[in-house]
Amino acid sequence: MAGNTFGEAFRVTSAGESHGPAIMAIVDGCPAGIELNEEMFRNDMDRRRPGQSEFTTQRKEADEVQIMSGVYRGETTGTPIGLIIPSTDQRSKDYSDVALSYRPSHADYTYDAKYGRRDPSGGGRSSARITSAAVAAGVIAKRIIAPTVTTGYVHTIKDIEADIPLEVTEAIVEQSAIRCPDPIASERMEALIRETRKNRDSVGGIVECIVDNMPVGLGEPIFDKLEALLGYAMLGIPAAKGFEIGSGFTGRLEYGSDHNDPFTLEDGKIVTTSNKSGGVQGGISNGMPLVFRVAFKPTATIGKEQQTVNNQGQLDTIAPAGRHDPCVLPRAVPIVEAMAACVLADLTLRDRASRI
Amino acid sequence: MAGNTFGEAFRVTSAGESHGPAIMAIVDGCPAGIELNEEMFRNDMDRRRPGQSEFTTQRKEADEVQIMSGVYRGETTGTPIGLIIPSTDQRSKDYSDVALSYRPSHADYTYDAKYGRRDPSGGGRSSARITSAAVAAGVIAKRIIAPTVTTGYVHTIKDIEADIPLEVTEAIVEQSAIRCPDPIASERMEALIRETRKNRDSVGGIVECIVDNMPVGLGEPIFDKLEALLGYAMLGIPAAKGFEIGSGFTGRLEYGSDHNDPFTLEDGKIVTTSNKSGGVQGGISNGMPLVFRVAFKPTATIGKEQQTVNNQGQLDTIAPAGRHDPCVLPRAVPIVEAMAACVLADLTLRDRASRI
Amino acid sequence: MAGNTFGEAFRVTSAGESHGPAIMAIVDGCPAGIELNEEMFRNDMDRRRPGQSEFTTQRKEADEVQIMSGVYRGETTGTPIGLIIPSTDQRSKDYSDVALSYRPSHADYTYDAKYGRRDPSGGGRSSARITSAAVAAGVIAKRIIAPTVTTGYVHTIKDIEADIPLEVTEAIVEQSAIRCPDPIASERMEALIRETRKNRDSVGGIVECIVDNMPVGLGEPIFDKLEALLGYAMLGIPAAKGFEIGSGFTGRLEYGSDHNDPFTLEDGKIVTTSNKSGGVQGGISNGMPLVFRVAFKPTATIGKEQQTVNNQGQLDTIAPAGRHDPCVLPRAVPIVEAMAACVLADLTLRDRASRI
Amino acid sequence: MAGNTFGEAFRVTSAGESHGPAIMAIVDGCPAGIELNEEMFRNDMDRRRPGQSEFTTQRKEADEVQIMSGVYRGETTGTPIGLIIPSTDQRSKDYSDVALSYRPSHADYTYDAKYGRRDPSGGGRSSARITSAAVAAGVIAKRIIAPTVTTGYVHTIKDIEADIPLEVTEAIVEQSAIRCPDPIASERMEALIRETRKNRDSVGGIVECIVDNMPVGLGEPIFDKLEALLGYAMLGIPAAKGFEIGSGFTGRLEYGSDHNDPFTLEDGKIVTTSNKSGGVQGGISNGMPLVFRVAFKPTATIGKEQQTVNNQGQLDTIAPAGRHDPCVLPRAVPIVEAMAACVLADLTLRDRASRI
Repeated sequence: MAGNTFGEAFRVTSAGESHGPAIMAIVDGCPAGIELNEEMFRNDMDRRRPGQSEFTTQRKEADEVQIMSGVYRGETTGTPIGLIIPSTDQRSKDYSDVALSYRPSHADYTYDAKYGRRDPSGGGRSSARITSAAVAAGVIAKRIIAPTVTTGYVHTIKDIEADIPLEVTEAIVEQSAIRCPDPIASERMEALIRETRKNRDSVGGIVECIVDNMPVGLGEPIFDKLEALLGYAMLGIPAAKGFEIGSGFTGRLEYGSDHNDPFTLEDGKIVTTSNKSGGVQGGISNGMPLVFRVAFKPTATIGKEQQTVNNQGQLDTIAPAGRHDPCVLPRAVPIVEAMAACVLADLTLRDRASRI
Repeated sequence: MAGNTFGEAFRVTSAGESHGPAIMAIVDGCPAGIELNEEMFRNDMDRRRPGQSEFTTQRKEADEVQIMSGVYRGETTGTPIGLIIPSTDQRSKDYSDVALSYRPSHADYTYDAKYGRRDPSGGGRSSARITSAAVAAGVIAKRIIAPTVTTGYVHTIKDIEADIPLEVTEAIVEQSAIRCPDPIASERMEALIRETRKNRDSVGGIVECIVDNMPVGLGEPIFDKLEALLGYAMLGIPAAKGFEIGSGFTGRLEYGSDHNDPFTLEDGKIVTTSNKSGGVQGGISNGMPLVFRVAFKPTATIGKEQQTVNNQGQLDTIAPAGRHDPCVLPRAVPIVEAMAACVLADLTLRDRASRI
Repeated sequence: MAGNTFGEAFRVTSAGESHGPAIMAIVDGCPAGIELNEEMFRNDMDRRRPGQSEFTTQRKEADEVQIMSGVYRGETTGTPIGLIIPSTDQRSKDYSDVALSYRPSHADYTYDAKYGRRDPSGGGRSSARITSAAVAAGVIAKRIIAPTVTTGYVHTIKDIEADIPLEVTEAIVEQSAIRCPDPIASERMEALIRETRKNRDSVGGIVECIVDNMPVGLGEPIFDKLEALLGYAMLGIPAAKGFEIGSGFTGRLEYGSDHNDPFTLEDGKIVTTSNKSGGVQGGISNGMPLVFRVAFKPTATIGKEQQTVNNQGQLDTIAPAGRHDPCVLPRAVPIVEAMAACVLADLTLRDRASRI
Repeated sequence: MAGNTFGEAFRVTSAGESHGPAIMAIVDGCPAGIELNEEMFRNDMDRRRPGQSEFTTQRKEADEVQIMSGVYRGETTGTPIGLIIPSTDQRSKDYSDVALSYRPSHADYTYDAKYGRRDPSGGGRSSARITSAAVAAGVIAKRIIAPTVTTGYVHTIKDIEADIPLEVTEAIVEQSAIRCPDPIASERMEALIRETRKNRDSVGGIVECIVDNMPVGLGEPIFDKLEALLGYAMLGIPAAKGFEIGSGFTGRLEYGSDHNDPFTLEDGKIVTTSNKSGGVQGGISNGMPLVFRVAFKPTATIGKEQQTVNNQGQLDTIAPAGRHDPCVLPRAVPIVEAMAACVLADLTLRDRASRI
């Protein structure tokens, strides 16, 4: 029942499957008067699309966004923005084996159990391809929340943890094919992913995202806390298994007296001297940068043979032949940013509705 | 704008502040014919309420749930269930200092910034007292999802990690005042919390929750994945800073070939031989137990003096005198269970709407 | 499933049954800083409550609104406003017959069919008593939309149609016990209702509502047109069977060239020289007064004996003995106003969210 | 803000403007396993499209529905159904005058006032073309609610009222180019519309819709009454100015004792001997046919010269040259059916969610 719509005031509705003719998105609630054209989608769509580097799946998708409505003479009109991303590389043959055997830790079995049927071509609605709709919506969201900026990057691959510089920008992140702003770690990550691909295996890791120039006051005390909506958004990304904000899972290691962020004044503005809160207190942004992390498991679809069961209820083995990512993290970076931007655009517009 | 409603088919709307006359909840969408009376709320409300043991705040609240509507002759009628939890211990004097100085890592400053005003009595809408509405709603949700059972417990306090037995039940958990099913760890945790309280400080930790007897097929591929809704629900609990399901943040340490959960057959039923997925694949439950963890920071409100800023924009110090929990974890256990039950009740009813 | 919440940005959730301990409403999304106290509810609640004149049911309800949350020192805080309206006159004995025989054109049968059970005391959730929640929410809504003013009045009772003066205010309307601003028609209506009551029968009619000082731009082109939301709101009032705006059902009698409202300028402002649109064009308010009408059927519950069927599936007769309104129209006036104010408050806040 | 989504369990989200490249619809919540292919859209799309007869606008649109997702091997998959209706006749030149002068009773002025900009080509989002999305969604809805059948027809054009036969089917309705099941009235209506077109004018009327084979129990007591949702749906159709169900605006002319629908038994089933309720009691369907009417104003866009104001705030005259319908009623019939089917599909799925 109706799980494909995201947001209240800035509302993204998505449709489309991995090997269908197109992915669709309808973005409702975007105010009129925001500059928008098809070119503006290019950068983030390119950062997400497959085949962009040796570290991602070699499947090719142009991922070109076509605007169907809601834009007139280069500006949004206030009416829903209809977006279409046509598929250019529909090779469903690769997936012929998949029809029968359930790929471990993939959605094959749960889809069959839930819907009683399933398009075996490439994961249908569970495919990473679906995230192109979110990235496209995120491009619009980023324009709404400007000058607030979401900057994602790869923080960890397997056990290789990056040393994150104090200042991170998209330009710095994009210097690394892995999207890791630590050049030394990035090289080691590249080597690990190359090796992993050779072994027909996969690895996971952590994407971190920082949001700068945050306004104060976004988020609701209950239930729509800013961190709750961010967590919801991030855990909706394929392969995400965890979310934490600020000190997250390690904040517990300190006493409260050390963990609390003392308030102080900076140029007359109230700030905190540390940011273990990650920019959120009581569910509401406090103006400090948002800092959150998303854990991604190793890609479920690997080339190695694995034990499984088929849709006839028989034991079986499987070694999928399709083109897959040995590591989704580099491509996950723009998705994390896009979903964060959508949450913030939604809360920005909702915030306006809460004023007299 | 309207953040106080949770769920689509099973919908909880909450109102009330920490020191107001009552907390209210309206539970809409509960099917008719479910046995329900005021007595049934007692157990979970008692597990959440303050003053239940030496390890929680000594503030006293009876937390008695009164049913205003939606129940007739001990059964739900299908119309909205109105619940009221009157406040019995409204001592707002304790909080007189709070009016001026912003408690670090608490919601004081963000409330003032968002709303331009704030009831200084005990945190208003950001108080843990508000969670009584969720626990009450959870009691109803638990009846809807039976025989599915949510079992929460304290997994870690600060750096003391419990050794969780293979089988955990509420009865086992309740043998520990900390709600930790490992008796040895529980004793160490008790000592730590006693010590922490003496120091007017606080500690955090991790609550884990297991959901047994899960049906297959709950959750939506995009955006309402089961783990996304669970994450949203958990991160809405005060002091929560992180959520992970299955292998969570540590799953990245394995290669995909090790991390994947192989399918096999058990009594003709499809199961997995490991459960790193935590019971969810592609956003949809696979019938294995759900396993997830919620990270809680050390309680923000402590008795120690801290640096801060007041609402006149001046540097200040603060040492709140109110009665507070040195550790919210024991009381968080029934809240985590309740929120999980609400998510599952919602998805259970939504699942019915998705069938022809 | 979850039909008891109304609105998106200004969101009213209601619970309670006719003879339960209290009616509850939670009003979410009200901005902070609006003056509000319990006294402010008195006027509209008195206009709605039973027993206010000889023309309404003689059942007594004080209909006192108690604020549980969301207000601090006489102003709203931005958090949800919890309202309780305790029942003072719970006389369920009158309705003992009702348990068995289905009252014609009432909700008895459909409730039994839908829910499989029903509290036979006075109509449960279908009772007019439920509208007290809407009227209470409307009081808050009216404060949000000020200086926009909703003025309802009785336009027609049975075949007695009022001659509506050019200017109608609440003060003028309240001079008539029927709430009809035409004194001559009002007297005839009073005589008709007295006669009808004596005959243990009932009559219906039309309530008209005018909204002055309308802003331009409220409403959405598709699907949330202003008239669509008004229609939805009005048709949710018990006994309502029709809604029309502007020229409504009779506009068809003119050609387009006569029916169109020509634009002109008045003090530099764009206005129309006629208002057959009723203040709405393309689903969006054009700044002219809203004018709409709601048709109410004769009250279903009458004292006369009628043929029916009972819940054992047997033919039966029924002549309910309870205290009922011979005509709901006078009491419907404040309900119509309240629902209109709720729609407008919602669209007012939504409008803010649509601006850059 | 987000007004372009309709329904909760069966959820239609629409995008597109009159002269853009395509109209889009995403239908979320449709259960898996329903037979669906592109051919099935043909009939209703043809009934709605312009240029189908001499009585509608001569603008040509093929209105071909393309399925982008949610269907596999001729059956729905349970995931969102993406639909695209490409525009084939984008002649924006006709509308060059419109850019400046506000067409009376059209959406030009309110759009400019609301959004601060507007695509002058043919009404943008307020165009009747937008309803193609609703009709497409309705085709899916009709399959969900079968064997429940929605049958719409023209009841009145201007002052020509049809004599509706006891049994009306789509086949009977389609014998008339006006879609009026009374052949004599139909001929008079045809003559009137021909004459009206010659005069460059327009006429309005009433569409009636009957829903047969209704289940008992659809609709919610508050606020989502069946009639409230139907009213909302119908008043969202361009040019609709009124809605009534059952006895509607004329029910007031009877006393309650005459107006009530007595219950009786027919083949052991509970039915009513009259149907002034129009199939709904207490907001819930009672199993009798739904009967409701929608009032349409004369088309606002006419060829005659009219007084108006332009977007420079100057008095002006206008005589639009575009191709328009002299009467929208014949084309409104399938739209009314579609919107009714969408409401019923939504309530049907919601009803399932309300069962234990």
